[in-house]
Amino acid sequence: MSLDQKKLLSFAPIKTRQNLTRQDVMLYALGVGAEELDFVYENKLKVLPTMAAILASPGFYWQNPAYAVNWKKILHGEQSVEIHSALPIEAELLGVTTLGPLIDKGVDKGAICYHTHKIYNNKKHCIATSRATWFLRGDGTGEGGSEGGGVSAQQQPHEVPLRPPELSHTQSTSSNQAMIYRLSGDYNPLHIDPSVAKEGGFERPILHGLCTYGVACRSLIATLCDNNPDRLKRIDVRFSNPVYPGETIRTDVWKDAPGKASFQAIAVERNIPVLKNGYVELAP
Amino acid sequence: MSLDQKKLLSFAPIKTRQNLTRQDVMLYALGVGAEELDFVYENKLKVLPTMAAILASPGFYWQNPAYAVNWKKILHGEQSVEIHSALPIEAELLGVTTLGPLIDKGVDKGAICYHTHKIYNNKKHCIATSRATWFLRGDGTGEGGSEGGGVSAQQQPHEVPLRPPELSHTQSTSSNQAMIYRLSGDYNPLHIDPSVAKEGGFERPILHGLCTYGVACRSLIATLCDNNPDRLKRIDVRFSNPVYPGETIRTDVWKDAPGKASFQAIAVERNIPVLKNGYVELAP
Repeated sequence: MSLDQKKLLSFAPIKTRQNLTRQDVMLYALGVGAEELDFVYENKLKVLPTMAAILASPGFYWQNPAYAVNWKKILHGEQSVEIHSALPIEAELLGVTTLGPLIDKGVDKGAICYHTHKIYNNKKHCIATSRATWFLRGDGTGEGGSEGGGVSAQQQPHEVPLRPPELSHTQSTSSNQAMIYRLSGDYNPLHIDPSVAKEGGFERPILHGLCTYGVACRSLIATLCDNNPDRLKRIDVRFSNPVYPGETIRTDVWKDAPGKASFQAIAVERNIPVLKNGYVELAP
Repeated sequence: MSLDQKKLLSFAPIKTRQNLTRQDVMLYALGVGAEELDFVYENKLKVLPTMAAILASPGFYWQNPAYAVNWKKILHGEQSVEIHSALPIEAELLGVTTLGPLIDKGVDKGAICYHTHKIYNNKKHCIATSRATWFLRGDGTGEGGSEGGGVSAQQQPHEVPLRPPELSHTQSTSSNQAMIYRLSGDYNPLHIDPSVAKEGGFERPILHGLCTYGVACRSLIATLCDNNPDRLKRIDVRFSNPVYPGETIRTDVWKDAPGKASFQAIAVERNIPVLKNGYVELAP
């Protein structure tokens, strides 16, 4: 099985419909460890903005044999979410996921594939855009990229300041955190099946990158937004190390300028960075 | 508002249809704190037998104003589940919940209402029977019972042996355990809303009795059934004290005779019994 760039990029965008319910919104929040009533109680409910990454989403679509990739070696590398209008707690949504561009870095380094996921409400208004970078660790051939060598397609990573962070916020995850998170639609067995985790090169199942992303989002809302999630308009990260379920996540925050901040997250028990190049934009 | 026995018992049985999915089965298991792959991973999935108490169930139906009871004062008092055939992981189910008999113990003591909930598969076969006792703490008038004073309707509680238990098994609950559990359908705000909990006489939201029941069931499967849930055929308990989310539950087990055992459960941090009169029947 070797990567067929042309074929992969020729697929039509994936369209996914979701009849979003309050239960979905609460389940996502519990999947990222929430206990804040705003995110888990139907009578007060608000949507965590990072949920845009999975709203009307096809889940871990790489398992589809049509893509012919070594899905057990795939890792989520980067994620960005931009919120264009307030996320609803109940709605009929359409997600459109478009693959590409793709950069093939060679047999040793694997390939990188980007996707853009746009979420529309039933008035055909785009309410959020999610962008992801996938590391196809088992699929490099060295054929180069789909677009000018690919490098131009990659956003310059946001650098966090060198000074100490102004704010820090810590959240625990539970030992069955990934088991809860996956019920929101990403059933990649890497996150639950010990044998699949071993095949992927990990000693045990790892947390979904997007789960860590949601945990950090809760910390950003608590530290930067006076607990008002509607103020978060953009959240970008790079997943720099896997998190194991049960670990504690400390999110460090730098206030860069009005409406802009940098952040990173650390797995406290191992003292290693798990989210890097974190960047947020905030409404006043 | 005062209890109208005649009206309450005149209601037609509640019929509830459920298109049971693997996701429902996993969500229930995670709601009772499970991490065992058999209960939370779609590729190996088995149903925890205590789930019969909520399969095709109307949830916390007492909030329906038609019943005209003081629902904020209601507590779940006893629960029994009998499994007649193996519980499916995917099925179209019909639940039929019948109220009664009812015992009115007076203004100070409140009233007791029983219900029987039968679960049918799409071949009209009854696969499980669940029985519950509700303590209507705010609705006693002293009118007596609906059936020979009511006492005859109450099963004699099962007494656990006086000797020390043969087996003990401990499980933790998470601080957001009730928040996860309620997504399986019991949205009684007593279990999440601090103000409703206070009105009910508790310092903070308490865990659902049926959640503690499921936690103990996991311990019974680990200690008595070699981790095979299909061997559990009947599980009866009395809820003797509320559990607060985050507490540790120790289940103590006595092997009474082949195929029969007694159990109770303790909230470890407060060293108080939370499940009493526990009785199980096991297939070989």
